[in-house]
Amino acid sequence: MRNLKMTIEYDGTRYKGWQKQKDDILTVQDKIETVLSKMTGEDVQVVGCGRTDSGVHAENYIANFHTESALTVDAMLDYLYEYLPEDIVVKTMKDTGERFHARYNVKSKTYVYTINNNKFRSVFNKKYVYHTNDKLNLDDMKEASKVLVGTHDFQSFTSLKPNTKPTVRTINYINITENQGIIEIHVNGNGFLLNMVRIITGTLLDVGRGKVKITEVETILAEKKKREAGPMAQAKGLCLKDVQY
Amino acid sequence: MRNLKMTIEYDGTRYKGWQKQKDDILTVQDKIETVLSKMTGEDVQVVGCGRTDSGVHAENYIANFHTESALTVDAMLDYLYEYLPEDIVVKTMKDTGERFHARYNVKSKTYVYTINNNKFRSVFNKKYVYHTNDKLNLDDMKEASKVLVGTHDFQSFTSLKPNTKPTVRTINYINITENQGIIEIHVNGNGFLLNMVRIITGTLLDVGRGKVKITEVETILAEKKKREAGPMAQAKGLCLKDVQY
Repeated sequence: MRNLKMTIEYDGTRYKGWQKQKDDILTVQDKIETVLSKMTGEDVQVVGCGRTDSGVHAENYIANFHTESALTVDAMLDYLYEYLPEDIVVKTMKDTGERFHARYNVKSKTYVYTINNNKFRSVFNKKYVYHTNDKLNLDDMKEASKVLVGTHDFQSFTSLKPNTKPTVRTINYINITENQGIIEIHVNGNGFLLNMVRIITGTLLDVGRGKVKITEVETILAEKKKREAGPMAQAKGLCLKDVQY
Repeated sequence: MRNLKMTIEYDGTRYKGWQKQKDDILTVQDKIETVLSKMTGEDVQVVGCGRTDSGVHAENYIANFHTESALTVDAMLDYLYEYLPEDIVVKTMKDTGERFHARYNVKSKTYVYTINNNKFRSVFNKKYVYHTNDKLNLDDMKEASKVLVGTHDFQSFTSLKPNTKPTVRTINYINITENQGIIEIHVNGNGFLLNMVRIITGTLLDVGRGKVKITEVETILAEKKKREAGPMAQAKGLCLKDVQY
């Protein structure tokens, strides 16, 4: 039995996230499993590195699947390229050890949230960038981000209902950069809860706007419960950039 | 009479270029003139820094127009932002000297042609990048580009019919960069003939593919006539990046 590891790029705009759901719901996993199953004549199950929210993109999503197929990796890549829709591309594939598991073996993941803070939106990249021309204090956002780095219970930063599953995660770093009005928030952590990066981003944006104080971020984190009108940044600005194993 | 200078960004995909043509042909100039005329109640004529081909994009296209309107620049920008289609944004506007002319005063322009040379196209930026997975020899392309730098008769590098207008132009530099399979060809010159950057790019791509030798580029240039099957790179990869005055 072969175990194949894939790097996948997708534009998440029209998908209800990575993870397969009911038959009539469009997901990236479902699209890929359908093509792989047709290609191999097997009922292929793809293991992804994690869920991504509806509308979120990925540059280097990692997944693996098992097959008895004798096709070469190049032949498989070409087949996928031909039969997958234009908004999903399997960029690389390789045979890997039989014990490799795209989800269990994740050490950390890097997400990037992109904000256009110029006066007007750009005609380019509209689908991948959140635009706001609110004045943002980047120094305050950077300062507030430090509160979240480290190992914490992130119950306040997820849409998960309380006590559904463990909510302690470690954020290794949050880097905030700015270039010609384009702000990128890079978040690296060992795992992310439902909507976690978007809620972190929404909170940091509120800090940048002066609506939330840095000390309040500490309070929100300590409270371990979702705020009533917790801000959640739009999905389209978010992209899973890399996965570390 | 005020003279206003604008910086314009547009996604040229659905336009037949910048320059106004017959009424039923979609052009960027026509869209902007229509909105400015409605805004001012005048018959506004916009002077652009030059034509761009059908399907070519612009990041910082420069244009100017005269008006008696007393509206503030910010009010005008907001009006344009509201009434122009999503693929055209006037980014900046300022009152300028009455003699400023967006076309006559151009010193040079910079175009960028973007090529994705990875095995597969990307799901992102499909509309702005030409994809080819042909093996390209970048060193040869750089060497060949040097043949074109300087002041030459570019009759061989335009779709203009011979003897329709002067075809001597100066190319100040051609820089070719590569990063993770994404190749950018930056061309700066004092003026460009019809299709000139696309034919230069198409020729350099043929050099990269080994179809045309560097010495042949010299011959093509010296011949001062368009080759029978002159290669012209796709419009979508081309973007007017900057205009220098």
